[in-house]
Amino acid sequence: MEGEDHLAFERNKAEFDVDAMKIVWAGSAHALEVSDRMSRLVASDPAFRKDHRPMLGRKELFKSTLKKAAYAWKRIIELRLTEEEASMLRSFVDEPAFTDLHWGMFIPAIKGQGTEEQQQKWLPLAQRMQIIGCYAQTELGHGSNVQGLETTATFDPKTDEFVIHSPTLTSSKWWPGGLGKVSTHAVVYARLITDGRDHGVHGFIVQLRSLDDHLPLPGITVGDIGMKFGNGAYNTMDNGVLRFEHVRIPRDQMLMRVSQVTREGKYVQSNVPRQLVYGTMVYVRQTIVSDASTAMSRAVCIAARYSAVRRQFGGNNGSLESQVIDYKTQQARLFPLLASAYAFRFVGEWLKWLYTDVMKRLQANDFSTLPEAHACTAGLKSLTTSATSDGIEECRKLCGGHGYLCSSGLPELFAVYVPTCTYEGDNIVLLLQVARHLMKVISRLGSGKKPVGTTAYMGRVEQLLEARSDVQKAEDWLNPNTVLRAFEARAARMSVACAKNLTKFSNPEEGFQELLADLVDAARAHCQLIVVSKFIEKLQQDIPGKGVKRQLEILCNIYALFHLHKHLGDFLSTGCITPKQGSLANDQLRSLYSQVRPNAIALVDAFNYTDHYLSSVLGRYDGNVYPKLYEEAWKDPLNDSVVPDGFQEYIRPMLKQQLRNARL
Amino acid sequence: MEGEDHLAFERNKAEFDVDAMKIVWAGSAHALEVSDRMSRLVASDPAFRKDHRPMLGRKELFKSTLKKAAYAWKRIIELRLTEEEASMLRSFVDEPAFTDLHWGMFIPAIKGQGTEEQQQKWLPLAQRMQIIGCYAQTELGHGSNVQGLETTATFDPKTDEFVIHSPTLTSSKWWPGGLGKVSTHAVVYARLITDGRDHGVHGFIVQLRSLDDHLPLPGITVGDIGMKFGNGAYNTMDNGVLRFEHVRIPRDQMLMRVSQVTREGKYVQSNVPRQLVYGTMVYVRQTIVSDASTAMSRAVCIAARYSAVRRQFGGNNGSLESQVIDYKTQQARLFPLLASAYAFRFVGEWLKWLYTDVMKRLQANDFSTLPEAHACTAGLKSLTTSATSDGIEECRKLCGGHGYLCSSGLPELFAVYVPTCTYEGDNIVLLLQVARHLMKVISRLGSGKKPVGTTAYMGRVEQLLEARSDVQKAEDWLNPNTVLRAFEARAARMSVACAKNLTKFSNPEEGFQELLADLVDAARAHCQLIVVSKFIEKLQQDIPGKGVKRQLEILCNIYALFHLHKHLGDFLSTGCITPKQGSLANDQLRSLYSQVRPNAIALVDAFNYTDHYLSSVLGRYDGNVYPKLYEEAWKDPLNDSVVPDGFQEYIRPMLKQQLRNARL
Repeated sequence: MEGEDHLAFERNKAEFDVDAMKIVWAGSAHALEVSDRMSRLVASDPAFRKDHRPMLGRKELFKSTLKKAAYAWKRIIELRLTEEEASMLRSFVDEPAFTDLHWGMFIPAIKGQGTEEQQQKWLPLAQRMQIIGCYAQTELGHGSNVQGLETTATFDPKTDEFVIHSPTLTSSKWWPGGLGKVSTHAVVYARLITDGRDHGVHGFIVQLRSLDDHLPLPGITVGDIGMKFGNGAYNTMDNGVLRFEHVRIPRDQMLMRVSQVTREGKYVQSNVPRQLVYGTMVYVRQTIVSDASTAMSRAVCIAARYSAVRRQFGGNNGSLESQVIDYKTQQARLFPLLASAYAFRFVGEWLKWLYTDVMKRLQANDFSTLPEAHACTAGLKSLTTSATSDGIEECRKLCGGHGYLCSSGLPELFAVYVPTCTYEGDNIVLLLQVARHLMKVISRLGSGKKPVGTTAYMGRVEQLLEARSDVQKAEDWLNPNTVLRAFEARAARMSVACAKNLTKFSNPEEGFQELLADLVDAARAHCQLIVVSKFIEKLQQDIPGKGVKRQLEILCNIYALFHLHKHLGDFLSTGCITPKQGSLANDQLRSLYSQVRPNAIALVDAFNYTDHYLSSVLGRYDGNVYPKLYEEAWKDPLNDSVVPDGFQEYIRPMLKQQLRNARL
Repeated sequence: MEGEDHLAFERNKAEFDVDAMKIVWAGSAHALEVSDRMSRLVASDPAFRKDHRPMLGRKELFKSTLKKAAYAWKRIIELRLTEEEASMLRSFVDEPAFTDLHWGMFIPAIKGQGTEEQQQKWLPLAQRMQIIGCYAQTELGHGSNVQGLETTATFDPKTDEFVIHSPTLTSSKWWPGGLGKVSTHAVVYARLITDGRDHGVHGFIVQLRSLDDHLPLPGITVGDIGMKFGNGAYNTMDNGVLRFEHVRIPRDQMLMRVSQVTREGKYVQSNVPRQLVYGTMVYVRQTIVSDASTAMSRAVCIAARYSAVRRQFGGNNGSLESQVIDYKTQQARLFPLLASAYAFRFVGEWLKWLYTDVMKRLQANDFSTLPEAHACTAGLKSLTTSATSDGIEECRKLCGGHGYLCSSGLPELFAVYVPTCTYEGDNIVLLLQVARHLMKVISRLGSGKKPVGTTAYMGRVEQLLEARSDVQKAEDWLNPNTVLRAFEARAARMSVACAKNLTKFSNPEEGFQELLADLVDAARAHCQLIVVSKFIEKLQQDIPGKGVKRQLEILCNIYALFHLHKHLGDFLSTGCITPKQGSLANDQLRSLYSQVRPNAIALVDAFNYTDHYLSSVLGRYDGNVYPKLYEEAWKDPLNDSVVPDGFQEYIRPMLKQQLRNARL
């Protein structure tokens, strides 16, 4: 660390062992070691510079991403990095690129849906990047409703080929990352048609571009779909549009692990359970939840450090003004987000366990936990990504005006993060899936079949419908069981109320449609309960390090009581708690904020982010914000000249009253 | 209108006279005529094209803004536009520019704070744009706390001059729009120092650049502060940084309407009331509230039209899929924002009246309503701009994935709008001003002095503390008095609860600091009450046009009941309503959504926005979205070539396994 640490006085206040907390955050000492090494590797290499990203035009920006991706791959080969290290390195490069889809979607799709033979043929090519692939599912007219896709793959028994075709404008593939300019291949989802019969949507490996000159193959129209939200951000990615004009591919390029088309054109199912697909979905969503904690923690780290640096008001008699982090309004907005970052970290960790558990069961042909696991991951994806999007913008606002500068890092973080709310399942659509599952669980309660996993509490529904909280003083809210019971009771009551209201409709589906908004609320309550309960479970583990567990307990309570306060209407209207108890929770929350305050900077230090990764002048580790902001400003292209380009043509004639004759 | 109207079937459903609603929205037939004429003038002139804005680099973008500003000024002169027309034209050009500050801050500052003599000297120059001015208040280290500004203006009696100086890095002026590259002059706020005494912050007219070659004058360092959030957006503005190295200006360039420095260096107050400054603040904030309704309505217009175009799910048996606007979840998110747009329109209209009322009183030396008017405008600025920022992003999400494309218009609308939450008073700081006012009102209740204006209901506080809502069935919530009483009771009880809690602290200021978060909640409740009550008052007027009033009643109820549902915790915990009554409000809300549904498209048509102004493929008047999205994509610079720039250097070596030897 060069230079003075302007936040040393904050770090000295910490009441816990920051290094031990770093291990808790990373998940293990090994994970911390790898992420620390990879993040420094990236941070110290000027090839990975990213602070000028917002100033680049689209073409320059894209070219620089191509360069970084190639360079990263070169380094991965040179340093013989393991898969874990390589993936970590890519994440610290911190720039959306075609490689995300190649490694994250194209290869997994072949692994998950390809036969042994197909995997042997395609995976080595892909893993050496001799081909580059993307995942072409969504269309101009179809996102959420995958079953409504229009692209067709018609089997032609004469030539033993599929004919891939885009029959309408709205069937154009639209959005796939890596498609627009880079991918040579794609897994394309299309309606399988054999002998005039539509067998629904299936995946096909289709080559898009020549491996020599990169030109699109005959019958293929492909391009970029244009600029997206924000400076830099996702504009480094070539999200693409793709149309097929009767493009032929060999029959063996249909991904045939689950269902097949024979040489004669017969459609047959294999004996591989279809449910395996859900395993992949659980996997992908688990990574999204873990990424949510990362994005949230980055924003919180920036806002917390700058809130400690920034002073405003209260400096009477020549004393320094107050640090804004000392204002209760700032704390009441910032600390729940800090708590959320940790909460999402632990629920993400638990989801990792859930994924391995589900896969083990699937391999043993046990599908019993799958619907619950599927609903639970859908709900947590929705909850954590919505909260993180909102949280990043809140952190930006918490930085005052300077948060609006690109050099704060927050505008780009927001712009690059928000699509997470829409992709891999729109967040509202996902909550409705949770709601459907909850209604199913309730309808089966009488049947003697016990609800499993995160819905297990529904088995105690009668007890929960009766329960009254026994909180009498503010500190009673520190009891994890008290908190858990309140969240369980609220969630159970909201679901039961929906179920009751549904019975008033003669047509259940009509009722479901009418009550959508209430069902979303009930699903959200259920998901918040999961986050709270997994945080509490985490605290039942042994957590080494001086004061570490204590800090996590405070954060857990903040997470829970903040949401209780925010959704007080739910708790009061379902009668779980009384207004007095709600007000005591609020009192306790204020006291928790005071407890977390001296530890705030150390708690964001524990994320172990480099200044390169944060890419924020406001969030600098050393807190030396103002001189650097000043320095940064002069790098803007507009400051290349003192007198701006356009002065002679557009400003001078105005000042000199010569506009009438000016050619504009 | 050329081409087919794909939304004609929606427009045919409308149950009210859209043209009459256009007049209500515009405020008068005259206002509609002018805005209609000016918006078409801009839309039909290719010089005002803006769809390519997100693709331009900073320099190109800025130069194109200079050109548009000059061209607009040329047209204003050529067409001899009135001040009203010119300001309307500028707003439809829809691009932040130095002219905003010149007309909106520099000229008003001279008008408000300059003496007659100063006005006679400076205003004609400014009004002919022979000089261009900006408003240099905020500094690198000081935004909210204006009294903490560090720039100094020291009187030198030897030369009869002020010496303007930036004593520290943090005293650098930072943020002023138009400062970085364009302004020749600025009103600079600095601490006035005479004879070693600090008289606090005052305004000074300072020339920054030569009127000939535009170079900064000696002692002045000036530049742009760098890129800001979003594509296009505020990057068209040269927000600037400015430092003074002992810059001398004549004594008569201090704005001396309220206080003066004599030739001898004596600081004296004039007999002009200082309170006049607050009048200006009321004015500026009133325009911000009115702009909030404009920004919100633009976003809602885009989201509503695209929600009617977009179909997803439910298309069984070959029928069309459902329009997403028919989903209750979509309605429950979209329609409250539609209602908010109208609500903010009417509260903005009322603020215009309040401003004239305040000014009349000030001129008659009646300052009695000023504190209330000041608090009320502060609160409404905060409430409407926060809701609008969130609302724009919600509308973007309501458009699904395509809302993330710049061609949807929503990313830029969001990025250009959000700073409104921070400038002219940070929204949380403003709510605390409201809270302070409310606490003052309550503390004086015993004194016999009746609370005035929007706090008048506090005069009935005892009655409100007792009141129980008499709602028995869902329709009872349609009664405006019932709604008003509930909002009054909630606001009064929250304020009273804060006031009571404050008494528990021996040091009132300490108590205030401790309870900040609760005070913010109480202030927000008060402001929501104002919006609801002004909407209800509007409906007591005569509103011509078939079905127009009926639609507005529906929207008013949606606005109120949506907020009741959202803040149910407030209403229940203060005991204003019972859980059962809350649930009835929710039922009523659902029914109101169904009533507004057939009118939704006509209600956004009533905003009378041109396609140019909306600048959104998704929000096109004719609903012809998909072909235009497809067309738009190909305009991206990345599509200039089929094979991207960088292929030879970065993609080909990867595919050909030649990366090891590549120079990257």
